[in-house]
Amino acid sequence: MARDPRYDILFEPVQIGPVTTKNRFYQVPHCNGMGHQYPSSWVEMRRIKAEGGWGVINTEEVEISHTSELSPTPEGRLWDDRDIPLLARMADAVHNYGALAGIEPAHLGGGASNNYSREIPMGVSARPIDLLEPVQTRAMDKADIKAFRKMHVDAARRCKQAGYDIVYLYCGHDMTTFAHFLSRRNDRTDEYGGSLENRVRLIREVLQDTKEVIGDTCAVAIRFGVDELKGPAGLTSGGEGRDVVELLADLPDLWDVNISDWSKDSATSRFELEGFQDSYVKFVKQVTQKPVVGVGRYTSPDAMVSLIKSGQLDLIGAARPSIADPFLPNKIDEGRVEDIRECIGCNICVTGDFLATPMRCTQNPTMGEEWRRGWHPERIAPKKRDESVLVIGAGPSGLEASRALAQRGLSVTLAEATTKLGGRVANESQLPGLSQWKRVTDYREYQISQMANVQVFFDSKLTAEDVMEVGADHVVIATGSTWARHGIGRHNHLPIPATTGSTVLTPDEIMAGTIPEGPVIVFDDDHYYMGGILAEKLRGYGLDVTYVTPVADVSHWTHNTMEQVRIQTRLMQLGVKIVPLHNLAKIHSDHVDLTCIYTEQVKTLPCSAVVMVTMRDAKDDLYHSLTRRLGGPLASVTRIGDCYSPGTIAAAIYSGHRYARELGEPICDGVPFRRELPALATD
Amino acid sequence: MARDPRYDILFEPVQIGPVTTKNRFYQVPHCNGMGHQYPSSWVEMRRIKAEGGWGVINTEEVEISHTSELSPTPEGRLWDDRDIPLLARMADAVHNYGALAGIEPAHLGGGASNNYSREIPMGVSARPIDLLEPVQTRAMDKADIKAFRKMHVDAARRCKQAGYDIVYLYCGHDMTTFAHFLSRRNDRTDEYGGSLENRVRLIREVLQDTKEVIGDTCAVAIRFGVDELKGPAGLTSGGEGRDVVELLADLPDLWDVNISDWSKDSATSRFELEGFQDSYVKFVKQVTQKPVVGVGRYTSPDAMVSLIKSGQLDLIGAARPSIADPFLPNKIDEGRVEDIRECIGCNICVTGDFLATPMRCTQNPTMGEEWRRGWHPERIAPKKRDESVLVIGAGPSGLEASRALAQRGLSVTLAEATTKLGGRVANESQLPGLSQWKRVTDYREYQISQMANVQVFFDSKLTAEDVMEVGADHVVIATGSTWARHGIGRHNHLPIPATTGSTVLTPDEIMAGTIPEGPVIVFDDDHYYMGGILAEKLRGYGLDVTYVTPVADVSHWTHNTMEQVRIQTRLMQLGVKIVPLHNLAKIHSDHVDLTCIYTEQVKTLPCSAVVMVTMRDAKDDLYHSLTRRLGGPLASVTRIGDCYSPGTIAAAIYSGHRYARELGEPICDGVPFRRELPALATD
Repeated sequence: MARDPRYDILFEPVQIGPVTTKNRFYQVPHCNGMGHQYPSSWVEMRRIKAEGGWGVINTEEVEISHTSELSPTPEGRLWDDRDIPLLARMADAVHNYGALAGIEPAHLGGGASNNYSREIPMGVSARPIDLLEPVQTRAMDKADIKAFRKMHVDAARRCKQAGYDIVYLYCGHDMTTFAHFLSRRNDRTDEYGGSLENRVRLIREVLQDTKEVIGDTCAVAIRFGVDELKGPAGLTSGGEGRDVVELLADLPDLWDVNISDWSKDSATSRFELEGFQDSYVKFVKQVTQKPVVGVGRYTSPDAMVSLIKSGQLDLIGAARPSIADPFLPNKIDEGRVEDIRECIGCNICVTGDFLATPMRCTQNPTMGEEWRRGWHPERIAPKKRDESVLVIGAGPSGLEASRALAQRGLSVTLAEATTKLGGRVANESQLPGLSQWKRVTDYREYQISQMANVQVFFDSKLTAEDVMEVGADHVVIATGSTWARHGIGRHNHLPIPATTGSTVLTPDEIMAGTIPEGPVIVFDDDHYYMGGILAEKLRGYGLDVTYVTPVADVSHWTHNTMEQVRIQTRLMQLGVKIVPLHNLAKIHSDHVDLTCIYTEQVKTLPCSAVVMVTMRDAKDDLYHSLTRRLGGPLASVTRIGDCYSPGTIAAAIYSGHRYARELGEPICDGVPFRRELPALATD
Repeated sequence: MARDPRYDILFEPVQIGPVTTKNRFYQVPHCNGMGHQYPSSWVEMRRIKAEGGWGVINTEEVEISHTSELSPTPEGRLWDDRDIPLLARMADAVHNYGALAGIEPAHLGGGASNNYSREIPMGVSARPIDLLEPVQTRAMDKADIKAFRKMHVDAARRCKQAGYDIVYLYCGHDMTTFAHFLSRRNDRTDEYGGSLENRVRLIREVLQDTKEVIGDTCAVAIRFGVDELKGPAGLTSGGEGRDVVELLADLPDLWDVNISDWSKDSATSRFELEGFQDSYVKFVKQVTQKPVVGVGRYTSPDAMVSLIKSGQLDLIGAARPSIADPFLPNKIDEGRVEDIRECIGCNICVTGDFLATPMRCTQNPTMGEEWRRGWHPERIAPKKRDESVLVIGAGPSGLEASRALAQRGLSVTLAEATTKLGGRVANESQLPGLSQWKRVTDYREYQISQMANVQVFFDSKLTAEDVMEVGADHVVIATGSTWARHGIGRHNHLPIPATTGSTVLTPDEIMAGTIPEGPVIVFDDDHYYMGGILAEKLRGYGLDVTYVTPVADVSHWTHNTMEQVRIQTRLMQLGVKIVPLHNLAKIHSDHVDLTCIYTEQVKTLPCSAVVMVTMRDAKDDLYHSLTRRLGGPLASVTRIGDCYSPGTIAAAIYSGHRYARELGEPICDGVPFRRELPALATD
């Protein structure tokens, strides 16, 4: 198909200093949990984005020195010349598609604990580092500042040598030495502290140094958070944030602007709308003549066009949308906008950084698998044989399996017990703030609708006999799971006793519309989003809600999606009572017994109902009845998604996708992916 | 010197199945934060222990499959044949010293989240995993059990191929599939659940399988926690713990026995005495004919002899003592018992596992540096030139610098302002539970006393003029730090306002004996041990104590030393009130204002005094006056330890040691250690 001419403007070249990008699609730096530790995975992940049409592909933050390192979090690494070959490999891969390669050298100051190198971090002043580790920075003296400038310029020189076109100064997210110097908490009394001009000095010096050394062939960009969202205590886009842009104006070749800190900038869809950063960054283009890139989790070409035409941005920055769909630019270019796999804003990608393992993506199951499994986000091997597959259940795993099997050319029958697609996603996207999660279903529903070899049947709750009658070669059970009422979970290995007359409800019941009476307790031994969000939902009915958890804070695992502070704040503001560090010992008809996890002291809390958020039980009855009938015409029966093991939506999509990839392929007896091993010393 | 004949018994060989260890010094498996990710560091760390005389050197837990992996925590890895060369390298290194090499294959079941491999963990039953991640295990069916048995035996075969002498079944610490089957929470209804005999079945089967396949040349050991320290809810050494040993008795070639879980077994000296496990494990030798190894953080040869002679153990197991002093056996053998660098039981080593970076050790600054810096725990390069060094301050860094400089043959003057050695260690070892920390000073004091080229001066608070008069070639400033009164820290970038008449005390003052009146608040924005331990100390005076912290629990960073639960429990049991998730906004004469870190809501709390535990200020005045006098006879002035940047005692010791190593050596312009880089894909 041809490109919609309305979108032509997105494919205009943009000059950035001495280089020119082929279009306005700009993948801003983003972490990925691969970095220097999974180098081949990392290169291939970036290469595929170039293949998908992005005009600029950036690295994540790249450590410029062993004196500021984030082990075990695998970011980029450019400690010395030995790191050039890997970085060059990415630049080369990107250049093959006519894209520009950008790199973000970073020195973290008090944002790094240097647990591996054991060097004392240096910072603006002598302070505890920003992490909860027993480490303090030492204050940079003049010799340190000189060394820092040299270190940054040496890094820039290596970046050029590795073939990069755009080289950053990272001054954003309150995360780097530059950002710390800029910050209002800079309390130096010399010419690098005090007035804003003094606080900008280090950036200005390094900008000038860098342009002098590599500016002939490389663009020098600055990444800057114009507002810290903490009012007068921090930079604001109406105050010093703007002043910084005015002070430096046309010195950098590119302004990459956002807000600070990272958790605020990369907010989830639960808390912020697409483009919520716009009001903060829109002044920038009025102040500088240089091109401006900004982010907003944009996936719609119409919104992108409007940002360009209104003079707000020159380049459309994207991190998460480029993860969910590395081929977003090509799809717009080819008039296939409906094929875009839109980011749902869940931040499961971000957890890769916090867990120091390669990131995953709810929407894009091939993320992180490009090299090690050879999975391409758009292409899949054609079927090996003409076979038919019956997929039972149209939740995330069933939908993805059906879509990918059909993409391989297999004949797919998708049987759904209810009258709608989506399974748990259909339900969970009705919860407060999660409406964008429906994109999981939207994308797959549309894809399936375009393929002649998938037949969807609703209202089709199948028995084992029904399944045998369908006569498919392969049966896939994707019947999902139900939240358990028994209370077994991480902190209770036996069911939680409940007396007669007590009311215990499950998340499924609350999602289906059950509204308990009287004071209600949400017991969260699950620790991801469900407990917190149900407390919010129930409080929305005006109920007296108490959230009880055996751990120290609400929705604990959402520290990894950077949502924890916002979730707990919201619950408190709504008037939900919170009882942390207590286990649920027993449920009575009008109260519960709670035990302190430290002292085992018991306290009681009045309530009429308990919502049990602990674990889920797979709905695998059908699977077990079918395995007994294997052989004969039925070649295989396989569980996928929550029916195999209840987990995240990302895990369910991945499970369905993997099934489709592996059907009919040789069975791997060992490790089913390529490995990245450290080299053994030879001396 | 010759060995004391009383210790001869420790050097007797012990037969373990088909192999024989040269002595009774047995380094049990222990994690180290290196594992498969820092392979060369890992091999050298193990090799040095063999050089130091240990009869058996074990690996840590070694993942036997990608379906049970702990990324990013770098344990051993034996996923397939590609991992054999690294493991063989360690076995070879150990054999060169006549030691046996042991290996601990491990399958973690619900103890692993498989964030890297993305495989669904399999376990005893379908349950949330033991971590707070959104992952559940699937229940192992009969095919899985068969596959598991094969997986374990294949791993054992690879262990033999790699040259190991002792191959484990790891059934301890409630951490592995074996342990989970054994556990009373095993709720299977088939022949692998229910009765103890059923729960032992899998272990018995794999023991038999393994002996059959590798038992001709390899000993097959079992590591087992005989008591879970949770009463009838778990295994007890008087109950099912003993029954397990009776059921398997002489089937394994070796019993390596301890208690569960890991945090209980590897308790710190703050909470448990040496050998506290003895009463639990002493029955084992009465039940089995096979050799028994146990641990107890033993560093005294007399205690070891008594354990052997009393018939409690055959082999002296050690993890932490072998980290603090890899040469412990040789020192006993050579009649140099006073030279043993005794473990202080602080668990800073354990933090390496939790932080997924190579472990460090308070007592042994060369730990983790053996390969990358070429540091040997006992040897050091002789001085390059005849030079004199004045070390100012006899805290941990000054003592270690003096010791190591003298070991190099330099002429050292150590000037201490007070009348005792130890600095902060002398003070902190007086705090409740920390008496063993004094070993930091004891070791160094004795070493220095044996060397003619160190002169120690007490009561010697030096001015810059005094220093110049001493006329040393090099001056080392190790004057430490003081706890700050201002309140600046992680959550407050400006001083915390205090009205006239309010009382703010520092940890230094409390340690020096100041006892505040009336209700006292300990404000902890430091998050390691100091805040919690001062609350305990003050409560010991009978004071009304409230512990306030901006984070969610007490002494948060001690999660990494596995002490957090014990610290918070102790404070609660003592009656210390705890106010988490609140910042200290303002201090008045009779109350404080606290703000909720989520909602910023203010609450007040009556108190007469605040103890401020936030950060430390380096005492570097002398350093700054001296740097102005550089040149001439004074060749260098250098800060080390807390005076350079306040941190852990381990960091201070390391800083002093590093100074001594580097004095007079060529200055490294780049990364000052050898690096371990992942191989880049070639296809």
